[in-house]
Amino acid sequence: MPRALGSLSASGEPEHSQDARRLRPEERSGGPAGQVTQPAGGARRRSCSQERMAMAATGAEVKEPQRHNGCLVRLSNPHLATMKEDLLYHFSLGTGTHDFPAMFGDVKFVCVGGSPSRMSAFIKYVAAELGLGRPDEDHPNICTGTDRYAMYKAGPVLSVSHGMGVPSIAIMLHELIKLLYHARCSDVTIIRIGTSGGIGLEPGSVVITRQAVDACFRPEFEQIILGKRVVRNTDLDEWLVQELMQCSSELAEFNTVVGNTMCTLDFYEGQGRLDGALCSYTEKDKQAYLHAAHAAGIRNIEMESSVFAAMCSACGLRAAVVCVTLLDRLLGDQISSPHEVLSEYQQRPQRLVSYFIKKSLGKA
Amino acid sequence: MPRALGSLSASGEPEHSQDARRLRPEERSGGPAGQVTQPAGGARRRSCSQERMAMAATGAEVKEPQRHNGCLVRLSNPHLATMKEDLLYHFSLGTGTHDFPAMFGDVKFVCVGGSPSRMSAFIKYVAAELGLGRPDEDHPNICTGTDRYAMYKAGPVLSVSHGMGVPSIAIMLHELIKLLYHARCSDVTIIRIGTSGGIGLEPGSVVITRQAVDACFRPEFEQIILGKRVVRNTDLDEWLVQELMQCSSELAEFNTVVGNTMCTLDFYEGQGRLDGALCSYTEKDKQAYLHAAHAAGIRNIEMESSVFAAMCSACGLRAAVVCVTLLDRLLGDQISSPHEVLSEYQQRPQRLVSYFIKKSLGKA
Repeated sequence: MPRALGSLSASGEPEHSQDARRLRPEERSGGPAGQVTQPAGGARRRSCSQERMAMAATGAEVKEPQRHNGCLVRLSNPHLATMKEDLLYHFSLGTGTHDFPAMFGDVKFVCVGGSPSRMSAFIKYVAAELGLGRPDEDHPNICTGTDRYAMYKAGPVLSVSHGMGVPSIAIMLHELIKLLYHARCSDVTIIRIGTSGGIGLEPGSVVITRQAVDACFRPEFEQIILGKRVVRNTDLDEWLVQELMQCSSELAEFNTVVGNTMCTLDFYEGQGRLDGALCSYTEKDKQAYLHAAHAAGIRNIEMESSVFAAMCSACGLRAAVVCVTLLDRLLGDQISSPHEVLSEYQQRPQRLVSYFIKKSLGKA
Repeated sequence: MPRALGSLSASGEPEHSQDARRLRPEERSGGPAGQVTQPAGGARRRSCSQERMAMAATGAEVKEPQRHNGCLVRLSNPHLATMKEDLLYHFSLGTGTHDFPAMFGDVKFVCVGGSPSRMSAFIKYVAAELGLGRPDEDHPNICTGTDRYAMYKAGPVLSVSHGMGVPSIAIMLHELIKLLYHARCSDVTIIRIGTSGGIGLEPGSVVITRQAVDACFRPEFEQIILGKRVVRNTDLDEWLVQELMQCSSELAEFNTVVGNTMCTLDFYEGQGRLDGALCSYTEKDKQAYLHAAHAAGIRNIEMESSVFAAMCSACGLRAAVVCVTLLDRLLGDQISSPHEVLSEYQQRPQRLVSYFIKKSLGKA
C-alpha cells in the first residue's frame, strides 16, 4: 500500500543516491540559471500529488491516492472545448470515430518507452504479473492505423511507445494527455521506463529520476513558442520517487539509485561521445563535462525526461522516470555488451514498475 | 542528365516559388541573428557540390557529377581512426560483424523519411521504377536486430527511416554517415522525403527546401555540446534544388515550389497549433506568427530539416529536402483529410525523387 510521505524518510536508500539527495539547489544547477517564463497555459498549479504531499506534511495519512482522490487529467488549452471532434493524428484515433471513455476510461497507469517492441513486451509481462486474462493472451496494438507509435492495454495499464528524443515523446504526450482527458480518466500515474547512459554507475543499475535537467545541468525545459523562448519546470513527483525506491528495496534484484537525469537533444555530440560522425573535442574535454555532471548530482543521461516531466507537471499527471543504464559513460561510449545482457538490463525498469503497479493495486 | 548550374536559371518555376527566390537574406531571417560559432570539427569546407558549382560558374560543363567526381563521404571526427571496431548501435550493425564495403559500397542515393512503412514502400517503388530485380521481389529490412530504425536497399538506392524530430534523425544520420564512410561510398546524394504542414499552399503541394530555418526563421541549427552553444549552417545543395525542380516540371503531376522550410522541435505549441494538450496563445497570435513565417519565405514546417542540412553539409553529402504539405496551416491545425488522400500525398515526394534518381542514372 502506498504510504504517506511523512513516513518515507525512514526508508533506506543505497549509498549512491545519498550525495544526490544532499545537493543544494545551486549545486544541482551547474549552468547559469535561465529566465523562467511561465506561459499562461503552463502556469504552476497545485497538483494532486502536491496536495497529497501537503497532507502528508501535516501528518494526515494518505491511503491509495491513485484510486480514491479523483484527480481528473486536465488540459492547459481553452481551445479544445470549442472543437467538435479531436483527431489524434499520430495515434490514428479520434473522438469522432472511437469511444474514448469506453476504451480508456479505466486507465490508472501509463507506461511509456522508446521502443515499440519493448512496450509490447511490457504489456505481456505486466498482464501476467497482475493475473489479467490468459497467460498466452495477445494484446493487439491499438494504433494499427499508423506506424508512428504503438499502444497496448491490459486492464488499468496502458503501454505506449514514444520513439527517441524530446520532439518525438512530446507529440506522443500531447495526444496521450488529450486521450486521457477525453476518456475522463482520473488519478493517473505515468512512468517512463527507458534506457540511458550512466555516470559512475555499474552498467545495469536503475536510476529513478529526482530531477530532469538540461545539457547545462539546469532543472528546466526550454521551448520556442511563436518565436519566443518559454521555460517550464521539470518537477517530478517526490512521493512517487520514494515509493519506487521502496519497491526496489523490496524486490532487491538490482542496484537502484535516485539521482538527477540529464536530458539531451543529441546522443553523440550532445552527450559528449567521441564516436559520432562529428566530434570536435578531446577525451579530456569529455571527461571534464561528465565529471561536472556527476558533481551536479547527475547519474544518467537520456533524451526524453525533461519534456516528459514538464508536460506531465503542467497537466496534473503524477510522473516518474525509471531508466536502466546500459554502460558507464566515464569508461566508454559504445554500447557493446552482448545482446542478452542488454536485453536483461532493459527488463529491469519493467520489473520494478510492474511490482509498483501490483503493490498499488494491492496484489503484491 | 544533370546539367551545369549556369544553365539552370532558364528553367521555368511555378509562380509560388518566385517570391521566395527574390527574398533578400535579411528578409529571409526574421529573427535576430545568433552568434555563429563554428566548431573545429564542423568548420565550413568546400564541398563537392560547391566545387561543382564553382566549375559551373566558370562555364565548365559538369557531367553526371554523382558518378564520376569521386567525392568520398567524410567524417569530422579524428577519434574514429583510432577505433578497432565501430558498432552502429541503433542500426544493430557493426564493422566487426558486417562487411560494410560489400553491403553498401555501391550506394549512390540515400532517401530518408520518418515512417518505416513509407520507406519500405519507397524501396519497392524505386526498385520497380529502376527495373531492379523482380517486380514482386521482397526487400528485407537490413536492421532486423533493432526496432529503432528500418533500412532497405535496392541497387544504388538505400532507404532509411528516421522517426520524428531532430534528435531522432540526428542519431540516424551519425550512424548512417559512419556507415557510408566505412563502406567507402563516394558521390552520395541524400534526400529527405517527408511530410509537413504548408503555409499558404494548396494541400498536396510539394516543397523543395531552399533553406532550412529555425523557429525564429534563422538559417541555422543550434546544439549544446559539452554545455556550450554551437551553431551550424543549414546549407543545402543549390544545384540539387534546381535539378529536382526541373524533374518536377518534367513530371508535371503536382504543384511543386521551392521555399524555405521551418524546422521546429515540437509539433503542437512549437508550430503554433491550437489543438495540443497545452496552448497559451490565441488564433490571432498564431496567424501573426504564420504570416511572419510566410513573409520570411517559409512555405512549410516540419521537424528534421535543420539538423539534416547541418550534418550533411558538414560531411560533404549533397543533400535535399522534399516534403509534401498535408494541410494549409493558415486554414487549420488538424490533419483531417481522408486516409486515401493523405496516402496519395505522401507518395508525391517518392515519385519526384524516384524520377530524379532514374534521370541521374540515365534511365528516365
